[in-house]
Amino acid sequence: MSGGTAGGSALDVPGFADVEAAARRIASQVRHTPVVTSREIDRLVGAEVALKCENLQRAGAFKFRGASNAVLSLRDEDAAGGVCTHSSGNHGAALALAARLRSIPATVVMPAGAPRVKRRAVESHGGEIVECEPTLAARETMLRRVVEERGGRVIHPYDNFHVIAGQGTAALELVDDPRPAPWSEPLGGPVEALLVPVGGGGLLGGTTLVGAKRGRRVFGAEPARADDAMRSLRAGRIIPVEAPDTIADGLRTSLGERNFAIIRREVEDILTVSEESILAAMRLLWEHTKLVVEPSGAVPLAALLQHGPPRGAARIGVVLSGGNADLDALGPGLNP
Amino acid sequence: MSGGTAGGSALDVPGFADVEAAARRIASQVRHTPVVTSREIDRLVGAEVALKCENLQRAGAFKFRGASNAVLSLRDEDAAGGVCTHSSGNHGAALALAARLRSIPATVVMPAGAPRVKRRAVESHGGEIVECEPTLAARETMLRRVVEERGGRVIHPYDNFHVIAGQGTAALELVDDPRPAPWSEPLGGPVEALLVPVGGGGLLGGTTLVGAKRGRRVFGAEPARADDAMRSLRAGRIIPVEAPDTIADGLRTSLGERNFAIIRREVEDILTVSEESILAAMRLLWEHTKLVVEPSGAVPLAALLQHGPPRGAARIGVVLSGGNADLDALGPGLNP
Repeated sequence: MSGGTAGGSALDVPGFADVEAAARRIASQVRHTPVVTSREIDRLVGAEVALKCENLQRAGAFKFRGASNAVLSLRDEDAAGGVCTHSSGNHGAALALAARLRSIPATVVMPAGAPRVKRRAVESHGGEIVECEPTLAARETMLRRVVEERGGRVIHPYDNFHVIAGQGTAALELVDDPRPAPWSEPLGGPVEALLVPVGGGGLLGGTTLVGAKRGRRVFGAEPARADDAMRSLRAGRIIPVEAPDTIADGLRTSLGERNFAIIRREVEDILTVSEESILAAMRLLWEHTKLVVEPSGAVPLAALLQHGPPRGAARIGVVLSGGNADLDALGPGLNP
Repeated sequence: MSGGTAGGSALDVPGFADVEAAARRIASQVRHTPVVTSREIDRLVGAEVALKCENLQRAGAFKFRGASNAVLSLRDEDAAGGVCTHSSGNHGAALALAARLRSIPATVVMPAGAPRVKRRAVESHGGEIVECEPTLAARETMLRRVVEERGGRVIHPYDNFHVIAGQGTAALELVDDPRPAPWSEPLGGPVEALLVPVGGGGLLGGTTLVGAKRGRRVFGAEPARADDAMRSLRAGRIIPVEAPDTIADGLRTSLGERNFAIIRREVEDILTVSEESILAAMRLLWEHTKLVVEPSGAVPLAALLQHGPPRGAARIGVVLSGGNADLDALGPGLNP
């Protein structure tokens, strides 16, 4: 566990070597997702945008990278009891799939009333759902009870050494081995900056490790209505989000401690975006790439559209973090 | 022009060799689109479904194949005056792009009140729009006037030798050189049947030429609310559609003469589907492949879900014909 300490704290924080190790560990399970481009999006942004398609990742989001790395990192005797987590979103489905691939059980604590599509995703990968009240406190209480009753290792959605290292592999591919989709225009050159959504900071943490090592500028993007990462970075300490009323359901969480320890050192800036920008960016992606991207995944493009590209960056790598849009919420047009 | 006559008629009808010639002619402009699979969709259908992603084709639909072949087949002296057509949909944008790539002008007659996204698609590829009343008669009258005033060759959306041959190249790739998307499961073997949407019959006509030559069974699929192809096939003569009130806007047209001359000889059956099936299939595609497919492109999957796979076919090749969904029509969820 190289880079096991950060800033002298006792936190167990991964370093770049852990991202490389994760890439090797998960290579046989995880998809090396393609990079797509769109001339129309480039024109609107005013720079070349390389879109890393983690919406095409297994279980529909980059979350499978971290979950896979965490599950594969367990020693056999620890894995035998299974894994558990609390999640209202993509981590639950990702962990269920990662567990199934190791033939161990997964239990996911989910708030009652979570979208049908999210429940189905966990169940379709063989995970067991345990319901709780829709508060963070209730989730944590229920998770503790699950661990007491069933055993099993808790795999936190983002504040976890191996999860952070696993999420970093998306940026590692984007920098070291971008593979333009066969139907898409090739990139004009390597990306100069990395821009990813930030909720709990798993993806941004891992991306930061890669950017720092490879000499790429790193930026995060989050909804203005859940701007805890921006405020935390400014303040130099974690400021939890309150009442994050945003359509970007993957980004409603507050930064984790390990995540902040990494992010605060190297991230150049956190950009915040309006709800309108998120929807507009999501539409643009659907229209011009023909890819279904969920609201959280559209947040980096929203930042580029709202703020313009980072000064001096001609080519920006963006992670389209997931494709699990809640189609039920889109309105009557898609619902027979 | 092999196969220049069909059933003794004087119609100028392409044969398989013309599809091969089209493939060579358009190779440098047209994308060899990937084939994706979905275990979940296979499970629901009860057979393996190979989804040919023409929604990822340039201009967002297979229509670019036919338009490209038609424009590249013009002699220089004929091309100089430009091209024109009437279209309320994907053919207009495809022709505009094909013309721009040959540096000739394109005029597209469109009904007033056509969706904004369709107008924008024509304009973004440099086509000029001339508006007319929203009736077929008005479109044809206006097109004649455009030809009289501006000159230019008319490229019919489907009842055209080179358009049919060009559309056949999608099925040719699917049969001879399917390229599984890098993030998708490989196919278990070659497809045994081909199933494509049918409106005017350009795609089904070209697909039929390929299926007949390569020994694949060929099926069409259309909305029950625009079931002219099914009725025409049964009756042995073209029965035009009346008041085709379907969400599958690409399939509201009646069969063309050249198209019917090919289709009647070799197509095994035309399957009709409900509007509910179309929406359900479109949703499934969005959810499980993360690809935006327009209603017309979801019609073949709708047929498989509604009727089951063709008896004896374990692996079915389906063309996802286009991705230009009218997102404005989807409801408030996508519209900031």
